[in-house]
Amino acid sequence: MNVRIFAGDRRVDAVPVDDRGLAYGDGLFETMRVHRGDVPWWEAHWSRLALGARRLGLPLPDAARVRAEAAALCVDGGDGVLKLQVTRGSGGRGYAPPGQAEPTWILSRHPLPALLPASLRLHWCDTRLAIQPALAGLKHCNRLEQVLARGECQAVGADEGLMRDADGHVVSATSANLFVLHGGSWATPSVDRCGVAGVCRAHLLRALDARVVVLSQADVEGADAVFLCNAVRGILAVARVGVRAFEPHPAVAEARRALARLHPAFAMETP
Amino acid sequence: MNVRIFAGDRRVDAVPVDDRGLAYGDGLFETMRVHRGDVPWWEAHWSRLALGARRLGLPLPDAARVRAEAAALCVDGGDGVLKLQVTRGSGGRGYAPPGQAEPTWILSRHPLPALLPASLRLHWCDTRLAIQPALAGLKHCNRLEQVLARGECQAVGADEGLMRDADGHVVSATSANLFVLHGGSWATPSVDRCGVAGVCRAHLLRALDARVVVLSQADVEGADAVFLCNAVRGILAVARVGVRAFEPHPAVAEARRALARLHPAFAMETP
Repeated sequence: MNVRIFAGDRRVDAVPVDDRGLAYGDGLFETMRVHRGDVPWWEAHWSRLALGARRLGLPLPDAARVRAEAAALCVDGGDGVLKLQVTRGSGGRGYAPPGQAEPTWILSRHPLPALLPASLRLHWCDTRLAIQPALAGLKHCNRLEQVLARGECQAVGADEGLMRDADGHVVSATSANLFVLHGGSWATPSVDRCGVAGVCRAHLLRALDARVVVLSQADVEGADAVFLCNAVRGILAVARVGVRAFEPHPAVAEARRALARLHPAFAMETP
Repeated sequence: MNVRIFAGDRRVDAVPVDDRGLAYGDGLFETMRVHRGDVPWWEAHWSRLALGARRLGLPLPDAARVRAEAAALCVDGGDGVLKLQVTRGSGGRGYAPPGQAEPTWILSRHPLPALLPASLRLHWCDTRLAIQPALAGLKHCNRLEQVLARGECQAVGADEGLMRDADGHVVSATSANLFVLHGGSWATPSVDRCGVAGVCRAHLLRALDARVVVLSQADVEGADAVFLCNAVRGILAVARVGVRAFEPHPAVAEARRALARLHPAFAMETP
């Protein structure tokens, strides 16, 4: 792993032990696909980060500086994953956000993740997503629900898991958004009360002219096709959700082609 | 700040940048009152930590080793605060908990916090506590709700704030539990759906023979007396909640005397 850590505009050797990201998960992150040394969706990731920072009152580092440091980590021209985390920086003991916070930011470059099966088996997670409109949509660093849900998937040998909110509505997978096909139209759950507004989801919402809906477990199991998506893996076909099996569907292949037109890394992977 | 950081049983200079506490708030913490070089409630804090670790599937470091390192940080025989944080340690990118996690643990010694007013003015926080039984009661490191709520208190100049859950039930302050007096009996909200099961709360539940109840905002504003409590500050009298003013009440003084019998640091502060 190639990593650079900053406190404000100074590069540092390690994250300060009193960092509020460590203490309280008081921060945000982005996980970006690197393609031939470039981050094609950089602007979309930065926009989401900036929106989250406004909602949390979190100071952001200088955008051009972060972009330049990110480019330096990708100068090999290769493929992979770039993670950017921004925290509220050092703070005293106590929840009160410091008045003059200097953000800690961390850029790390990672290899592409291990390939998943061509078509995923999904577990219905028992761990629910709590309903919290103040944090919904953000890719913040309070992720214990996802850690618990992912542990469930490991325990049952599933590739991923679908999470429902406290009211039973289906929201997303643990680290991907969900799209379902009904009557030839794609739809994806709202992330206004919980869940993450994925960057890949946003691109596909437009490209597929998808609707944002409230989904029950029965709506998912009764769909004609289902896929997951995120900004690192693109579109992931789904073979099974609980006991419901899905055959390969031409609409998923069409969605892949639409995504391929939006991001060159996913073009290469189109079957 | 005097601090010691460990990866498993090795003392290290800094928290690894890939620590899951930093990435996801994947950890637990305890904040303990130090009195004359001792931590009188150590066992209660460790028990709560161990319960949280079981619920999260988090490995704990060796209890005797942690106790010894804590003692070394308190060898001056002084007063103050000791914080212990335990995270799931280093992990790859991704939510899945590693199979063989080696915990990161951090002990830090701090001075006693600044004195609060003798009687607090509390704000009704707009930020709600999401209902999440899987995490309720635990002192975990996903604390963005408290950070946002505490920011509200700062903005309005309140000493602390009361938080309601998504259903409107009153749960706690941002960093203290709540007790209310009705008809001569003390009660405190349930922390089965959200909130933290405070160590001081647990001691006072027994000492005051208090009931665990569901509380509305009207129940709090209509109480005969109200106090907050935590393991660092003991009992904090409340002068005002929103527009409702409270006069000093002999039952609060009696609760302080009960707490004084349970922890020597709070005996010294009894008026």
